[in-house]
Amino acid sequence: MLIDQTLLPTEYKVIEITEVSRLADAIRRLEVRGAPALGVAGAFGVALSATRCVSDVEFDETIASDAALLKSTRPTAVNLAWGVDKVLRSMENLPPEMARIMALFAAKNIAENDTKACMFLGHNGASLLPQIGTVLTHCNAGALACSSWGTALGVIRSAKKMGKKISVISCETRPLLQGSRLTAWELARDEIPVTTIVDSEAAFLMRQGKIDAVIVGADRITKDAVFNKIGTYMHAVCAKHHGIPFYVAAPTPTFDAGASEVEITIEQRGRDEVSGFFGRTTVPENVPVINYAFDATPLDLVTAIITEKGVLYPPYDFTDLR
Amino acid sequence: MLIDQTLLPTEYKVIEITEVSRLADAIRRLEVRGAPALGVAGAFGVALSATRCVSDVEFDETIASDAALLKSTRPTAVNLAWGVDKVLRSMENLPPEMARIMALFAAKNIAENDTKACMFLGHNGASLLPQIGTVLTHCNAGALACSSWGTALGVIRSAKKMGKKISVISCETRPLLQGSRLTAWELARDEIPVTTIVDSEAAFLMRQGKIDAVIVGADRITKDAVFNKIGTYMHAVCAKHHGIPFYVAAPTPTFDAGASEVEITIEQRGRDEVSGFFGRTTVPENVPVINYAFDATPLDLVTAIITEKGVLYPPYDFTDLR
Repeated sequence: MLIDQTLLPTEYKVIEITEVSRLADAIRRLEVRGAPALGVAGAFGVALSATRCVSDVEFDETIASDAALLKSTRPTAVNLAWGVDKVLRSMENLPPEMARIMALFAAKNIAENDTKACMFLGHNGASLLPQIGTVLTHCNAGALACSSWGTALGVIRSAKKMGKKISVISCETRPLLQGSRLTAWELARDEIPVTTIVDSEAAFLMRQGKIDAVIVGADRITKDAVFNKIGTYMHAVCAKHHGIPFYVAAPTPTFDAGASEVEITIEQRGRDEVSGFFGRTTVPENVPVINYAFDATPLDLVTAIITEKGVLYPPYDFTDLR
Repeated sequence: MLIDQTLLPTEYKVIEITEVSRLADAIRRLEVRGAPALGVAGAFGVALSATRCVSDVEFDETIASDAALLKSTRPTAVNLAWGVDKVLRSMENLPPEMARIMALFAAKNIAENDTKACMFLGHNGASLLPQIGTVLTHCNAGALACSSWGTALGVIRSAKKMGKKISVISCETRPLLQGSRLTAWELARDEIPVTTIVDSEAAFLMRQGKIDAVIVGADRITKDAVFNKIGTYMHAVCAKHHGIPFYVAAPTPTFDAGASEVEITIEQRGRDEVSGFFGRTTVPENVPVINYAFDATPLDLVTAIITEKGVLYPPYDFTDLR
């Protein structure tokens, strides 16, 4: 069961998914998105594949092909492949009737652990936020991006639990507006004060002294860079310029500590995400678009990385993390 | 006669304006926008007022009230008030029958001088651009924002005339998309290679080494800051971080050298520009929006200011400019 995130904030609809191919579509269309949520979706995808495949003969082949399909949908978030692989490993060397049970068990475990990680991560990060202040965030690293609680927004939720008075500036996050559609929606539901701005206004609010900290999630953290929604890098550069702390909140499955920035493919998505709104053309037809879904922020712009295992500070060393 | 800039790039429609109140509406609705074009519009507005007011008795009162109406429509661009005042001054101490003729003459003169200024400015700035390279721009400082040729885009047009091979990255410019709708449209019409991106992608393209210079227009230049479309400041900070030159192209009527940043009101526009697209809600109803139309970039982030009288470099001194 997934909340269809493409319909928010105007419609709250839960989709029941019974086919792996439909799940792959849902991931591609961003009906489900957010790095930790993709890890959980990938995990349940493999469990779904195992449950649906009644033939013992074609079992291994079906699981492998479904797993490959799921992993191919989005290349940048490491969690998706991590969730898929983790469930695959749980089934290794087991006969199909046992593998089906283990897969579902492993997937549920991943979802539970994600919630737990967000709670710990939130608690660890909350102490970094001021007693009273305004925090800027980009995209959605909230409950919608996870199983619940959220990463960046989990920190804000935990700070509220601690009695801190945090207001949030949620950048709308072009092109797909996860900030205005999702982050604003879930914070308003939790009665956390939230205001939306266009992405390009963030630096000017920093200059006006209206932002005390920036906190974002991550889709992948290599040994040298944080990959997250396009625009994250711009906020990091501007935060540095204004002496504002720039925090990344990410559970340890987001780390890909063996890899470095240059090895990672940044997903480029379709022209239509930028060139039109709900059927109205906003870019002339003969003008091309560059549409990176993510960017990479070098670690020297990151004040701290908040994980469920603790807060990491420069010089960063992720070797013992996973 | 105005091109309705709200309909581009899908529809090219010219509006004939015969009432000052309709012109004030057109300015408020951004059917006409862009600092130099607002100067010309304000000037023709006063001329229209003089032409339409057949009563000699109510002449002075009508002109004064129409002039005040026009100046009240948009507070940040200095050119609007400048164009209005310049025509008012041309009519001073003249009887109505002479004032009507002088007003139209003065307005036409402002339009002609604007075109001439853009041509000189373009020529002066073109030498700053590389022989082959990519220039990033924000919003629309093109022919549509002026009488013709343009300021920032005038520099690019002049560079092309000189035989330089310049590609343009046009930031879409949220919330009203003047970059994707207008800049991309007018450059594509002139066969200058142009690509559109979301505003938040600019910094990442700078990091990838894909941007050789940034060039923008201005709505007002005080002794300490450049006021221009929201997002300009962010580009200036990011250009500085990457060692990329940041140029401002503005004719001398844009200068307000006696004023300083803190004295200037930055226009805040309606929530609906951010909270919905063509009738679709993208921000939950209970979530507020901050929608500054402009921001202010301190002069220490500006590599050079290109005017029709020459290129200015730091330390800037505008006292003899107007």
